[in-house]
Amino acid sequence: MSLKDYCFDGKKECRLKNMPTDAGEYKLQKAELTARTEQNLIRAAELQEKLYASKSEGLVIALQARDAAGKDSLIKKVFSCLNPAAMRVKSFKGPNPTDLGHDYLWRIVRAMPERGCIGIFNRSHYEDVLVVKVHQLQKGYNIAPRCITEDFFERRYRQLNDWERYLWENGFRMIKIYLNVSKEEQKQRFMDRMELPEKHWKLSVADMKERALWEEYDKVYEDCINATGTEHAPWYVLPADNKWFTRYLMSEILVSTLEDMDPRFPPLNSEEAAKIPAVMQELENEV
Amino acid sequence: MSLKDYCFDGKKECRLKNMPTDAGEYKLQKAELTARTEQNLIRAAELQEKLYASKSEGLVIALQARDAAGKDSLIKKVFSCLNPAAMRVKSFKGPNPTDLGHDYLWRIVRAMPERGCIGIFNRSHYEDVLVVKVHQLQKGYNIAPRCITEDFFERRYRQLNDWERYLWENGFRMIKIYLNVSKEEQKQRFMDRMELPEKHWKLSVADMKERALWEEYDKVYEDCINATGTEHAPWYVLPADNKWFTRYLMSEILVSTLEDMDPRFPPLNSEEAAKIPAVMQELENEV
Repeated sequence: MSLKDYCFDGKKECRLKNMPTDAGEYKLQKAELTARTEQNLIRAAELQEKLYASKSEGLVIALQARDAAGKDSLIKKVFSCLNPAAMRVKSFKGPNPTDLGHDYLWRIVRAMPERGCIGIFNRSHYEDVLVVKVHQLQKGYNIAPRCITEDFFERRYRQLNDWERYLWENGFRMIKIYLNVSKEEQKQRFMDRMELPEKHWKLSVADMKERALWEEYDKVYEDCINATGTEHAPWYVLPADNKWFTRYLMSEILVSTLEDMDPRFPPLNSEEAAKIPAVMQELENEV
Repeated sequence: MSLKDYCFDGKKECRLKNMPTDAGEYKLQKAELTARTEQNLIRAAELQEKLYASKSEGLVIALQARDAAGKDSLIKKVFSCLNPAAMRVKSFKGPNPTDLGHDYLWRIVRAMPERGCIGIFNRSHYEDVLVVKVHQLQKGYNIAPRCITEDFFERRYRQLNDWERYLWENGFRMIKIYLNVSKEEQKQRFMDRMELPEKHWKLSVADMKERALWEEYDKVYEDCINATGTEHAPWYVLPADNKWFTRYLMSEILVSTLEDMDPRFPPLNSEEAAKIPAVMQELENEV
């Protein structure tokens, strides 16, 4: 298996119909891959410690998916391996009136982590080319008519690419994850939510109505992934029907990204280093 | 006189040596132009009211200049004509450690006004290609080495152009003002600051040392203006030795920009309008 199979960085076209939604042949390796996940998370935590110490790069992982595809549980189960002091999780709901008064990246930029930290976006700036496109929400925006052009979403793809290149050039990596759940599995999870009282808080009838737009969402996700997958800010389309497998792949992506960033503990500067013997002596002489 | 003479929007090259620092022949028209300034400010306030009501566009005016060129007094004397409820003034000092941990536009984006408002930036994102370039501050940044490239500032020009185009496409206009003060006039203003107790609070010996880098600043300002003057986010190079003249030109730019934005009071929606007769009746029937 190669992560490349799931990666879209502008070099090949994404067709969601050809992408797996479950673990397929890897189901036979569940025990082994689950053990690998645990090892990966330990390794990720080690690398995060170095990243936090060096502060030379930041990482943002944007999670996008249909409802019940497992974004929340992925955050809970995978990213709990990280030191929360160096992590910023932000859930983006629909924009509020203040957000809508600003440019659409305004609320996203405000949630950007500082270098040395890992930001997890539960939904993200991509909603502005996904749900907005499916429902053509831009037509209801209170904005100068010159801004609502024929190529509105092509412009947005370009704007997002510009912004992510800017981030890359300024010490931030963006990784975009699409959790690819099947329609059948989503139905099952919705059923669970309705049947189990401890899942009622996740229930939203409005969300479930989006199922009727399954094909439309397939199309806008495909267009979006093909337009905004780049080498420095790739999309990963991960099968989401088997949560253990999604977690395994996410852990692989996390480790491989952090290894590519190659964070290192910063050396003590020579001025500080020169003072160490005297300070050690002083501490030892304490009564 | 035409505002075009002072405007750099990518169509002609800027040479600061050829740009006036004082009112020149217009000194003879001081009384007339000062009266025009007053009229302009009244007109600007009328247009701002419509902009605030319509909320369909935002405007940002970024003021850049050497010390003592008159940014603060321009804000005080010109922009006091505007309703402060619909105005956001932000002074950008050197970045603090939190700012430096983020991408350099992070603190700027956070200060962006909402549509319907006018933002005044006292210094701005342009410091990142001006003072940073003169002092090569990027070499001391704690950032992944891949980010400090040979073409670091060319990249930044591109990044700024991308961002300002994005703003334009999302309902914001950016206007960049360079206050062009002469070296002799700056000297006089520094002398005043030292002699007058009520100006001591503006005094900074460090600022005055930047005078030694006059030519270097000329060069980076020219490069910057030529690289980032665009039709939708133009630079204006305004003579700054005679404050009354700078104010006049600024008032002309403000009015012409607002007129081009053409804000209009929004009509009452038909549902609300239909209710008016009944509500009027109710109010009249009050005992």
